[in-house]
Amino acid sequence: MIPRYTRPEMAAIWSDAAKYRIWFEIEAHAADRLAELGVIPASAAKTIWEKGGAAEFDVGRIDEIEREVKHDVIAFLTHLAEFVGEDARFVHQGMTSSDVLDTCLSVQLTRAADLLFADMDRVLSALKKRALEHKNDVCVGRSHGIHAEPTTFGVKLAGFYAEFERGRQRLEAAREEIAVCAISGAVGTFANIDPSVEEHVAVKMGLKVEPVSTQVIARDRHAAYFTALAVIASSIERLATEIRHLQRTEVLEAEEFFSKGQKGSSAMPHKRNPVLTENLTGLARLVRMCATPALENVALWHERDISHSSVERGIGPDATVHLDFALNRLAGVVENLVVYPERMLDNMNSLNGLIFSQRVLLALTQAGASREEAYSLVQRNAMPAWRGEGLFLDNLKADKDVAAHLSGAELESLFDLSYHTKNVDVIFKRVFGN
Amino acid sequence: MIPRYTRPEMAAIWSDAAKYRIWFEIEAHAADRLAELGVIPASAAKTIWEKGGAAEFDVGRIDEIEREVKHDVIAFLTHLAEFVGEDARFVHQGMTSSDVLDTCLSVQLTRAADLLFADMDRVLSALKKRALEHKNDVCVGRSHGIHAEPTTFGVKLAGFYAEFERGRQRLEAAREEIAVCAISGAVGTFANIDPSVEEHVAVKMGLKVEPVSTQVIARDRHAAYFTALAVIASSIERLATEIRHLQRTEVLEAEEFFSKGQKGSSAMPHKRNPVLTENLTGLARLVRMCATPALENVALWHERDISHSSVERGIGPDATVHLDFALNRLAGVVENLVVYPERMLDNMNSLNGLIFSQRVLLALTQAGASREEAYSLVQRNAMPAWRGEGLFLDNLKADKDVAAHLSGAELESLFDLSYHTKNVDVIFKRVFGN
Amino acid sequence: MIPRYTRPEMAAIWSDAAKYRIWFEIEAHAADRLAELGVIPASAAKTIWEKGGAAEFDVGRIDEIEREVKHDVIAFLTHLAEFVGEDARFVHQGMTSSDVLDTCLSVQLTRAADLLFADMDRVLSALKKRALEHKNDVCVGRSHGIHAEPTTFGVKLAGFYAEFERGRQRLEAAREEIAVCAISGAVGTFANIDPSVEEHVAVKMGLKVEPVSTQVIARDRHAAYFTALAVIASSIERLATEIRHLQRTEVLEAEEFFSKGQKGSSAMPHKRNPVLTENLTGLARLVRMCATPALENVALWHERDISHSSVERGIGPDATVHLDFALNRLAGVVENLVVYPERMLDNMNSLNGLIFSQRVLLALTQAGASREEAYSLVQRNAMPAWRGEGLFLDNLKADKDVAAHLSGAELESLFDLSYHTKNVDVIFKRVFGN
Amino acid sequence: MIPRYTRPEMAAIWSDAAKYRIWFEIEAHAADRLAELGVIPASAAKTIWEKGGAAEFDVGRIDEIEREVKHDVIAFLTHLAEFVGEDARFVHQGMTSSDVLDTCLSVQLTRAADLLFADMDRVLSALKKRALEHKNDVCVGRSHGIHAEPTTFGVKLAGFYAEFERGRQRLEAAREEIAVCAISGAVGTFANIDPSVEEHVAVKMGLKVEPVSTQVIARDRHAAYFTALAVIASSIERLATEIRHLQRTEVLEAEEFFSKGQKGSSAMPHKRNPVLTENLTGLARLVRMCATPALENVALWHERDISHSSVERGIGPDATVHLDFALNRLAGVVENLVVYPERMLDNMNSLNGLIFSQRVLLALTQAGASREEAYSLVQRNAMPAWRGEGLFLDNLKADKDVAAHLSGAELESLFDLSYHTKNVDVIFKRVFGN
Repeated sequence: MIPRYTRPEMAAIWSDAAKYRIWFEIEAHAADRLAELGVIPASAAKTIWEKGGAAEFDVGRIDEIEREVKHDVIAFLTHLAEFVGEDARFVHQGMTSSDVLDTCLSVQLTRAADLLFADMDRVLSALKKRALEHKNDVCVGRSHGIHAEPTTFGVKLAGFYAEFERGRQRLEAAREEIAVCAISGAVGTFANIDPSVEEHVAVKMGLKVEPVSTQVIARDRHAAYFTALAVIASSIERLATEIRHLQRTEVLEAEEFFSKGQKGSSAMPHKRNPVLTENLTGLARLVRMCATPALENVALWHERDISHSSVERGIGPDATVHLDFALNRLAGVVENLVVYPERMLDNMNSLNGLIFSQRVLLALTQAGASREEAYSLVQRNAMPAWRGEGLFLDNLKADKDVAAHLSGAELESLFDLSYHTKNVDVIFKRVFGN
Repeated sequence: MIPRYTRPEMAAIWSDAAKYRIWFEIEAHAADRLAELGVIPASAAKTIWEKGGAAEFDVGRIDEIEREVKHDVIAFLTHLAEFVGEDARFVHQGMTSSDVLDTCLSVQLTRAADLLFADMDRVLSALKKRALEHKNDVCVGRSHGIHAEPTTFGVKLAGFYAEFERGRQRLEAAREEIAVCAISGAVGTFANIDPSVEEHVAVKMGLKVEPVSTQVIARDRHAAYFTALAVIASSIERLATEIRHLQRTEVLEAEEFFSKGQKGSSAMPHKRNPVLTENLTGLARLVRMCATPALENVALWHERDISHSSVERGIGPDATVHLDFALNRLAGVVENLVVYPERMLDNMNSLNGLIFSQRVLLALTQAGASREEAYSLVQRNAMPAWRGEGLFLDNLKADKDVAAHLSGAELESLFDLSYHTKNVDVIFKRVFGN
Repeated sequence: MIPRYTRPEMAAIWSDAAKYRIWFEIEAHAADRLAELGVIPASAAKTIWEKGGAAEFDVGRIDEIEREVKHDVIAFLTHLAEFVGEDARFVHQGMTSSDVLDTCLSVQLTRAADLLFADMDRVLSALKKRALEHKNDVCVGRSHGIHAEPTTFGVKLAGFYAEFERGRQRLEAAREEIAVCAISGAVGTFANIDPSVEEHVAVKMGLKVEPVSTQVIARDRHAAYFTALAVIASSIERLATEIRHLQRTEVLEAEEFFSKGQKGSSAMPHKRNPVLTENLTGLARLVRMCATPALENVALWHERDISHSSVERGIGPDATVHLDFALNRLAGVVENLVVYPERMLDNMNSLNGLIFSQRVLLALTQAGASREEAYSLVQRNAMPAWRGEGLFLDNLKADKDVAAHLSGAELESLFDLSYHTKNVDVIFKRVFGN
Repeated sequence: MIPRYTRPEMAAIWSDAAKYRIWFEIEAHAADRLAELGVIPASAAKTIWEKGGAAEFDVGRIDEIEREVKHDVIAFLTHLAEFVGEDARFVHQGMTSSDVLDTCLSVQLTRAADLLFADMDRVLSALKKRALEHKNDVCVGRSHGIHAEPTTFGVKLAGFYAEFERGRQRLEAAREEIAVCAISGAVGTFANIDPSVEEHVAVKMGLKVEPVSTQVIARDRHAAYFTALAVIASSIERLATEIRHLQRTEVLEAEEFFSKGQKGSSAMPHKRNPVLTENLTGLARLVRMCATPALENVALWHERDISHSSVERGIGPDATVHLDFALNRLAGVVENLVVYPERMLDNMNSLNGLIFSQRVLLALTQAGASREEAYSLVQRNAMPAWRGEGLFLDNLKADKDVAAHLSGAELESLFDLSYHTKNVDVIFKRVFGN
């Protein structure tokens, strides 16, 4: 959790204060049901809520106790007893530490997902707005970094919109999977606690029950969660990479907003660097790196071992905090992106008409040339244009073998941008539904 | 694709023959629709199906052409033309290589998923059968590798069943995501091909259309697919690890079936090693390693670069083939697992009754002891039993401070296995629904 | 950087205060050389050292400036100027931010390595001490978790000693590689700064010069560093896994020291869990996950982009801090490990003599049996012993086909532990040199 | 091991034929020493060499045997016996399978490293040649993809040379580490085999002895090997990325050699795509992905488990074969790279002189401006030039506040390319030593 890439809302989910509050709520809700079942006195449940609910837990004190007992949940319960008094002995009845820890982690990951939904919605909203704004701004599409054929900047953004929408759906599935509660006791057999306690706590904490737990909630759920974040991070990297490319000096079709007072370089005052999207590229790596240890966490020994715990203390906050930050930074970049439609046209035209080569190829084929002949005719007129020797159209007109198939007027009609944008509406309808 | 970990059905999906057949079908279906649109003659579409459909493509010949043109799709089309004749010029009209390559990969990954469903169903079926068989076979549950409390071997297996069921659901989502077709031309703008061609081919190939493609199908879909496989692989590792533990000499509660004639060691004839589950552990790593490059593949440059291709030539077959093999090997291991219920009981009882320690703790609390006092009373009687000094029950009976809370008869009543298995039905009902 | 897995010495290396101090020293040393070259006044260099050296940099103030200029080095230089006054304009002459940032990172990683050397030495020392202590304590060696043949606990530990020694050597190579200084200006051409400045600063900071930098120090050096840490982490995992196995209830040949007052479980007071080594297993995953993003950082664009920076803000502290903690925790575990030599013997003997099966096999071969026959003879007498049906030796004696090759006395002579330990001295000499 | 990315020399190392030949040699060398020790008859050792040495092992037959015995080394030994006859019972005396398997893997990885050295030398040689050729060809250096200051194309290549040289050194260290032999028997104790056999085989196979093995050679050695390959792969990615950038349509300072007959696109005949370097980018990911499972392989259970084996059957060939292919492809790309020095100059000058901004900044500071003032003066004259409004030099001349510090002639003298190349010799001397 790197402070400069941390937003307070997400950090708060992972604070000690938030964690202990969730622990308390789990214990107190469990006490309610235990009281209903007659396992503990109703008055005890009430006291737990009243005294514990009003308590401000002292993290330093809990740490102090933990240093002695070397067990975090016991340390918390001991501290809780300092507030609740004698009735504290009715807390945690029949439960085991993992019941508290794992259910808490589910709550935290669920809340984190909810923040990430809001983040993704901001990204989606920005992408949609800018896509509509630039729906018909023609620019060259590039494959292999080489000019291919015209597209529009709006189509580019629509593609990213669709990708982030998929990311959101995956995150929804991941949230659904992780939103489970386990209050099943020592090895998950409900020996010392009635299954209805789990059901009660689940409802109260906004979760479902884990059908079968082995003291812990199975870690394939968590692995699915972190890999879902990793894929979203990779989508961020793709969009960041696109913008970095567009901002290159030689391309400069778009650039990150450069605020007044901002300095691009300590040495070269002229520089305006795509530092935000480069940063996003790095953040994507940071989020993504959490996938592997999450996968390694799945194969716990027998009913559980504690090797997953230290990993989750790291990747739980790190992956969610950095992704939250990255999505918001990305949204800002998209919202404020400075776009240069004229430069887009200039760049597109720099290849002397070569972007129309495929259409010429197809027209030659339609006019009777074999595919191989047509390919050869186009290539031999394209290569000089590529080297700056004449416009592609002029070269074609001057080629007798081409003329055998297509007249000058026919050739000219092929060099038409609207031909390439005629299906933009179809694409937008597919993506945005209207 | 390591031969010894390869099953023929899955390998066939990735064979050159299968690939070229899919390529052909994509081109031929596209030709059908192009003919309907009047872009190419109806007779040409017919000829393509007839002559191409009957063709046995010569992989060696295609390789030969590719060595010259250095482009695999062009090499294939050139070879196809050798069968189709003059009408071959109507093949691939307005399409680009990625239309063929990416749609083919979608078909392959979809078919691979279908095989994996069958594999998982076999695993699920085996787990369910064995879970029901051993539903009430009591064994000790272990946390941290240390005896905790009783559970049943059926409950263990039910947990794995639920986990593999989740894996299957994730794979279904991944299959759904990858089952998309893109026939959108050079930079995905449908400039040279009508969107209805894509729709037609999609239906025919059992896919949906990619709403917006950038020449390629976006690689976040593939990343989601490979990470779904990675999580399943990790679940395999968890079950394999469980069995490896159970087969340890000192535990020996279950072991892999050891066939007649099998040799465990070249040097030590007495050995019966859990080599299948160790192998599964390694295969899990092999499948899992494909997740990272799949994530790195997402951020292609602009409308596409070709860096993903070599990666997918590796991980496409490798991850699906090895996972297919692993799931089948795992199913066999579960089906044939030799289980030793008596040894389970012997092991469970080896700790002199300590597995009942929590129940005693709770009873002491119920009887008025504070949590801390109860913990201390239990611990001081448990530790000698742990060291083999007396049975835990006897130690408790002899402890005056315990006696102040619980009589001998009360203590004895706590040492009851059925207490721990009373909710097995609840768990099974949750997992298996009945 | 998870607080509970952080030791103050290592954390201090990564503190803002330490970073700014290193930045200052780099700038001030550079100023010295620039003064010698006559580029800046000698008095300025003196002032920089005096006023800057006495300054207590205000991290909050620097953050405040950075929020405006959005550039960390410029923010620092602006703050430095608040101390140095007018001569501050002679600071950073001809340098670029990366000169400061990358050289600082080299210093930090070098210092981190030095702490890690001390950590590894503590681990090595503990391993050597315990290896010598248990040099001749016989225990069973296990392959596949199954009893194989006798070894000694000392030999086990000697193997780990050798492995950590290799890890130390790799870390030395990694430290050597990372200990480079770059003061080469904007794109590494020394246009605005003389190469002798770099040489001067390098010497003063305990580094060598980067032969050719591209504004940044090439990131393959950092990747090599983090992968070296990752391999060490994996060695930690191997030793932790060994101890976790040995502490299993059914094995219990060794266990982590369990301090007075420690509580193993909130629910089951009898538990003594190998929580430290489980924790080390998780920490190993955390350190190891840093390798992948470090590798992804290598391919910066052209002379540099800033994508590596956010990654390094994470993995720089995280990998070194967690490894530092893990090595110290590991050292403590080894130093205090409770070893049970008697239990080792009990376990070894539990297989009724099967551990001598290979020796019998060899003796049969020596006595004229074919390899296949010998294998078969051993196996048929071993399997009953494995099932607890008789001692292996007795079974062999009763087998007529065995008797055809070996007499009862000959058989008895094969069941001799000293046969297995006769080369322990050789191994110790190889590892410890005496 | 993807056929299209496989070169025969490297593939041969991993063939079954090569493997069985190495197994045979290990067994035969061991027999020699065993004969010297009198453990087996001298005539047997001779027969083994003669009959086994002349044998052509039948892979199909070995597979057949393995299907029955389910053990690969036993299958091989059984097949070997079919050639050697009765003396075959003296083969493998006191050895265990891992002695053969692990020593063989060491030999294979060592030979693979030797091929990789040759590959790297080819890359280094190409880089040096081209670096010297373009030593003084000025091009713009770019940070963040944005023009920064002039450098030379030779300096760029020199940087890669230094990086690959480091990679070679790391590979040397990795080869040194992996070149170890273990012939230590069942659990590494030399119970059944004299340590001198290991020493003899080691010498004969070009290896050193593993000081202490645990039946297997410790897997940290292999992890170090594969991570060394991973870092080299990342360096390949960096160079490939550089070339891909340089070949972008808008940059086009260099491009991959485009052979006669090559087709860049099935749809767009004008395209010349950097497909080789894109392919190298993908291959880098494939090689790199092997690092994680190699790290996961380290923590084998006790003296060994077999989980590493399947992983190594994959990553052993895959990582070395793909890296071998990639290095050779890279060497070819560098050797044949088409470089456009004029375009380099055109691009560099496209920013209207802004590349000299830092020098102006420094000159203003030298002339008495404060750093902040100078930065502001430069920036306000740079931004219009950036937007194409006037040359940077003209803007500066027209700025009164600049004129207060620097005359027109002084300003002009700052716009001098040789200022930026004056230390190229220093850099080349550092890298190439002359």
